[in-house]
Parts: sequence; structure tokens; C-alpha cells
Amino acid sequence: MKKKIPEPTLRRLSYYLRFLERFQEEGKEIISSKELSGSLGLSDAQVRRDLFILGEFGKRGVGYNVPKLVNFLNLFLGLEKKQKAILVGCGNLGKALLQYKGFKKRSFTITCAFDKDKRIIGTVINGTKIKDIKTIKNEVKKKKTIYGINACPVLSAQEVIDKMVDSGIKAILNFAPVKIYVPEDVIISSVDLTIELEWLSYHVHHYNRLRK
Amino acid sequence: MKKKIPEPTLRRLSYYLRFLERFQEEGKEIISSKELSGSLGLSDAQVRRDLFILGEFGKRGVGYNVPKLVNFLNLFLGLEKKQKAILVGCGNLGKALLQYKGFKKRSFTITCAFDKDKRIIGTVINGTKIKDIKTIKNEVKKKKTIYGINACPVLSAQEVIDKMVDSGIKAILNFAPVKIYVPEDVIISSVDLTIELEWLSYHVHHYNRLRK
Repeated sequence: MKKKIPEPTLRRLSYYLRFLERFQEEGKEIISSKELSGSLGLSDAQVRRDLFILGEFGKRGVGYNVPKLVNFLNLFLGLEKKQKAILVGCGNLGKALLQYKGFKKRSFTITCAFDKDKRIIGTVINGTKIKDIKTIKNEVKKKKTIYGINACPVLSAQEVIDKMVDSGIKAILNFAPVKIYVPEDVIISSVDLTIELEWLSYHVHHYNRLRK
Repeated sequence: MKKKIPEPTLRRLSYYLRFLERFQEEGKEIISSKELSGSLGLSDAQVRRDLFILGEFGKRGVGYNVPKLVNFLNLFLGLEKKQKAILVGCGNLGKALLQYKGFKKRSFTITCAFDKDKRIIGTVINGTKIKDIKTIKNEVKKKKTIYGINACPVLSAQEVIDKMVDSGIKAILNFAPVKIYVPEDVIISSVDLTIELEWLSYHVHHYNRLRK
């Protein structure tokens, strides 16, 4: 467990978990690496290699025990207990995130949201009350959370994230398409909504070339 | 150029392009693999290997020619000409995507948006007129686009994407956290907003364990 997991493997684990949970919902107990790889567009060998890094889960010729693997992946990714996050920026993107069903499914709840716009401070979106950004330090202390989500646009992103960090937030999910600087003890991950568009573009481009 | 590019490399190319463009804006002509890898948290060797797959861009002891590499990556990813996309679903997420600056930066323009809600059909968001989803087939034919973005929620996602496919859309960016089925000649990429949260969770979890 002390082995360093390569970053691409780590991201694939999230995808394995999604598919395994679906199999589990269907009442399946055992899955082959072939079934798992097929549904994810990976090679058989890749799946076996990834899961081998984590320990011994499969039996040759039998397959993987689904509930055991789901349980392990949840533990491994730190998802076994509910996690709380705060959100800053309640424009369209912030509102969409407050209503996004995916977070809850992954044990994340946005317990508190902030904005600077007086017209929306005090309103409630999907059960979450919007508070004044000026109160962020107090609220983060009260909620004892270390996760923060930035849904503010490019121009205010760095300023807002500085405020999060100053309030004690240690892990940040950033939606603004701009480079953000954080201290060394804070981790940040930026969601770039165009990376997948480029992936599509590459495939369309090369698919078209093949057809010429 | 006919070599198959591994998927993880393909996604890294998008990140290289982002950083190279920033260097170019600063007027830099040459970049070392060390500078490039450092800013992306990758190893030197990884960057050299990735760029080697594409062809000969670097000179030993000199570095990579920035404008040449930017130009090549744009061509390679099919981004050299403007691409048009349609969007379906103009709720909060759809509105946020219509205002998202990242798409334009990557030569993608949402030229047309659709919804079924009579209250917003006919309104204009960030220059794009919202049309009735019933007219999608005609509009897609007129706009001659093959890219579609789904911002509809889970429950209507498959139905909406079936309509896109029926209209001639061939490449789909999907934001609904649910498995979608498309015919073989259509490619789809689903953006899962929680994958990055799990990545953060893993690092927080293992970082905390180290501190115990």
C-alpha cells in the first residue's frame, strides 16, 4: 500500500469503480478482466496490471470479486466516509454544480456556498444557503472542511482561491481555465472542459483523414 | 504520422499545447524538456518520449522550437480551423457552457443551442439564440456541424443524444453522469466532474496517513 501509484493508473481506478458499482447494482458477484476492460475501452492486460498494483483481487480463470474490489477502491480513494466541500461563485456554473447529482454519488456534499453578489446572498439553491464571501474564514472553521470548489471566472479565480487557502482549505477543485498558484501544502486540480473537446477533435480529424 | 498515439499521450498533448502557448505569448522561442515537464508535474523523460512519438522537434542540448511545436500540435489535434458545435440543454450548466471562455480559445464556437422549455426558446445567451429542440435536424443540416454538446440532465440524456445522432451529429461531448449508447460511427466523450474530486480525495487521504 506504500507503493506509489502512477497518476494515469490512479485516474483509471475511478473509472473501474464506476463500472464495478454498476455491475454490483445488477447483482453480479464476479467480473472478468475482459468484461471490465471491454466496457472501458482498455486492454485486458492493462486492467490486470492496474489491479495487480493494488494487491491480489483476482483468481486466474475465475475473475474479480466485485463487492470486495468496490469496497477496496472506495477505501483506497478515501471515499468511504462522507466528505464536505465549500463552493465559491454562484453564477451559472456554481448553480449547476450545486445541482449536480454526481458529487453526492461520490460521497461529496457541498455544505456551504459563497458569493459576493448581494442579490443572491441569503438565497438557497438545492438546499444550500448562499453566504457572503466575507464570512468564508469563519464558515470554513465551523464546517471543518478542507475541500473547496472554485466556480468563479478567470479574472477573480486567483483572488478567490487565495481566500480559500487563507481560510484553511487544503484541496481545491478549480473550474476557471487559468493557471492558479497555491502554497506547497495545498493541492489543486483544475477541470479543463476543453481537453475532451480536443480529444474528439483529434479523432474526428484523423478519422476524416483515413476516409480521404 | 500513421503511428497510433496512446490515449494518455494524446491527452498530455493537450496540456503541452496549453503551456507552450503561454511560453509563446511571453515571446519565448526555445523551451527545454525540463521547463515543460516541470510546469506539468511530469518527468523529463516522459516529455521527451511523448514528443519523440510525434517526430523530430528538439535538438539535444538546445531544446524545442516553441512556435513550430505549437503549430504542429494545433494541426495534429485538428484545431487549426474553427469548429462549430451545437449545444442541447440550456439550464444552468448549458448557460455556463455558453459563457465559457475556454471553448473559443480552442477554436470551438457554439453556434446554436436548443431546449424544450418554451420560456427560454427565443432568448439569447452570450450571442447564441436558443431554439426549439424540435428543429434540431433542420438546424444541424443548415449549420453543417458534426459536434454536439449535451448539457441535459441524466434522465433525458440518452433521448437527447439519440436526437443529436439522428440529426447527423458525429462527435459528442456529454456532461450527464450516466452511460450513453451511440452507434459505432459516432464518438462520445463524457466529462465526469467527480473524477478530479476523487483524485484530490486520494491525495488528501494518503497525505493524511503519512502525517499520522
